This record gives sequence, C-alpha cells and structure tokens, in this order.
Amino acid sequence: MPATAYNTDQWLAAAKYRRTIYGLKDTSPVPDSRIEEIIKEVLSFAPSSYNTQPGRITLVLGQKHKDLWDDIITVAEPILKGFGVWDKMGPTFQAFRNAYGSVLFWVRGESVKESQETHKAAAHMFEQFSEHASGMAQIYVWTALELEGFGANLQHLASIPPVEAAIKKFAGVPDDYSLKANMNFGEPAQPHPEVPAKLPTSETLKIIK
Amino acid sequence: MPATAYNTDQWLAAAKYRRTIYGLKDTSPVPDSRIEEIIKEVLSFAPSSYNTQPGRITLVLGQKHKDLWDDIITVAEPILKGFGVWDKMGPTFQAFRNAYGSVLFWVRGESVKESQETHKAAAHMFEQFSEHASGMAQIYVWTALELEGFGANLQHLASIPPVEAAIKKFAGVPDDYSLKANMNFGEPAQPHPEVPAKLPTSETLKIIK
Repeated sequence: MPATAYNTDQWLAAAKYRRTIYGLKDTSPVPDSRIEEIIKEVLSFAPSSYNTQPGRITLVLGQKHKDLWDDIITVAEPILKGFGVWDKMGPTFQAFRNAYGSVLFWVRGESVKESQETHKAAAHMFEQFSEHASGMAQIYVWTALELEGFGANLQHLASIPPVEAAIKKFAGVPDDYSLKANMNFGEPAQPHPEVPAKLPTSETLKIIK
Repeated sequence: MPATAYNTDQWLAAAKYRRTIYGLKDTSPVPDSRIEEIIKEVLSFAPSSYNTQPGRITLVLGQKHKDLWDDIITVAEPILKGFGVWDKMGPTFQAFRNAYGSVLFWVRGESVKESQETHKAAAHMFEQFSEHASGMAQIYVWTALELEGFGANLQHLASIPPVEAAIKKFAGVPDDYSLKANMNFGEPAQPHPEVPAKLPTSETLKIIK
C-alpha cells in the first residue's frame, strides 16, 4: 500500500474542491515564501514524457501582478474595443488585475525541439506531450493554491497574440517560450462555487470487461 | 479555509507518490466496481475550458485488457519489426499486456468542433484546451489508481496511427475520437520508484515580486 497518509477518496475530494474563482482580493493568506515553496515542490515531481521537462513557470506577486495586468490591459483594450467586447471584458480584466498574483505556465520550444532530436521515433508527439504536461502542472498548482486558502482562475491570453507578446516581454522570457495558461490567484472575495453540471457517464465512459 | 480534510502538503505528497510503474501484475487489489467508481468520480469534476467536456474514457478490465493488447501487438509487431525495434519493444508490449486493465483517454472531435462554433472568439484555442483537459484527467486517474494500490504507466500509442486505429476498433469509438493516452494498470510487480532527477528551479522558475 502507498506510503502516504492520503487515501484515494481524500485525493479525489481535494481535486474536486478546486474550482474557478473569479472574485479575488489582492491579499494572501500566507507569506510569499510559502507560495514559492508550493511552486517549487510541484516542479520537483511534475511529470513529462521521457522526463523531458518542457515546462517553465513564472510566478508574479503583489504590485508586480498589477503591473503585469496594466501591460495586458494596455494592449488588450484597443483590440477588444475593436471587437466591441471591451464593455464586457474590461471589468473582468480589472477583476483579474485585482488579484494577488499570477502563475504563468510556459512551454519552452527549445526543450521540445531537443526532445524531438533525442527521441526521433516519437518526434511527432512532443508538441502534444508538452500540452499534457502543462495541463498536469496547471492542475497541481491550482489545487494546491486553493487548498492553501487562495481562490484562483485559469486564463489563456495566448489567444490574443499581441497580449501574449506583452506578457512575454513583462516576464522577460525567450522568444521560444509559449504561454499555455496564466492563473490569477488571491484570497477569495466570493463563496466557494459548486461543481458545474457534467454530462452523464453514459456519454463519457464506456466499460469493457 | 477549505472544507476538506486534506491540506496542501498532503495533496502534493500524494501527487508526488504517483510514479511510472512498468512492472505490473494482472491482478487488482479492489473489486472492479471500485475502479469504475474512481473513474466516474474523476469525470464528475474534471475541468475543461468553458466546461465543454471534450474528454471521453474507455475502461478495459481483466481478459479484455489482454484482448486489447493482442490486437495492439498484432498490428504493431510488423511495423516495429520494420523499424528494427521489435526485439526491444516486444517484451515491453508483453509486459503491458500482462497488466490488469487499461484506461483509454480520448478527445471527442465533435465536442471540440461544437465548442469552436459556440465560442467563436476562442475557436482557435479549443484543440489546445482539449489537450490540457486530457492531461488533467490523466493525472487525476493515474494518481488515484496508485493511491488505491495499483501501479500504472501511461503510453501514447496514437504515435503509430495503425495502432491507434486498432485501439479505436477494439473500443468501438466513433471516427472523430482521438486517443490521447492509454494507461496500463495492475498490482505492482516491482518496488515503488523514486522521482527522476529534475532541472534546478534556477532554470525552470522565475519569481517576479
């Protein structure tokens, strides 16, 4: 049996506890050192195919989180105004700005390339592998932060390329990095939400035995 | 504070406990109904962007797992012989066959398409979102099964398209399904491995505060 105090049901209950929380404050229930410790712990074991480790993380805290969102809003506002959606999105972006910190999840393109050269037979798979590994790192961090007393939500601002460029510039990352997700977190300013409705398992699960 | 008995360190310890285990037996420490319950629980809360739920799972148990691997080996053997790697891969495939069950993680293409139509502004993102959501579901199931007393390893046989086709035929899934990963699991026939070496956080983490 596992040498952990955790059992399966506790693992699943903790995983289920993690929700999308939009209402966030710019305060933290723990010292910054604790947030850094959590991220480092995730990096110490998070898996990747062939242990090729294409993932990179930037942690942005406090005033710097607001500075990041100021840069995002400067670039996003005219673009989203052009699409006629800024009236709706502006307050949402301001709410993201009003959180305590950001976790930026990157994939390092050079790592993917190196993996493709080292493992030639699976070369065509490493882009996909890097997405899976990023998703796993995202869910580890997201759940851990919520168990620590934060709320968090996961955004994907690479959807607007000039905004991704602004975030890369702010973070000072190399050109080959791709932003896979950016998580806003802070003490929750809203009740903890319920799990949204899911499709019945008659549609999502087939058992062959 | 979270309404869960788990704290952050326990979550991270359980996540870290999950390892790749190649040595597996064709036995289960629990009834099949318990395995089904774990998969259903994951499906009841696993996230996806906009809750679009593109993921599908096929659970294959007992003799059917061996039947699945017989089909895989029938198709893979001549292909891998052609590449001169069957002497190495044959025993590995037989070891996979000698597990207790498989979890097949799919993405349903029609769900991705529907999401692209419903959320037009993010249409270009849903392929990537489906990969992240699949990675999250994979790690939930993998960790849960190991906490339950199984060993497991995660394979990606979509890397060989005729093999993916054979798995789709075996599972009876529609054409629009893509196989994202296939997990073999069974009672462990080897010691629990250590975490492989990771890059220093000086390379993988940047903190801006």
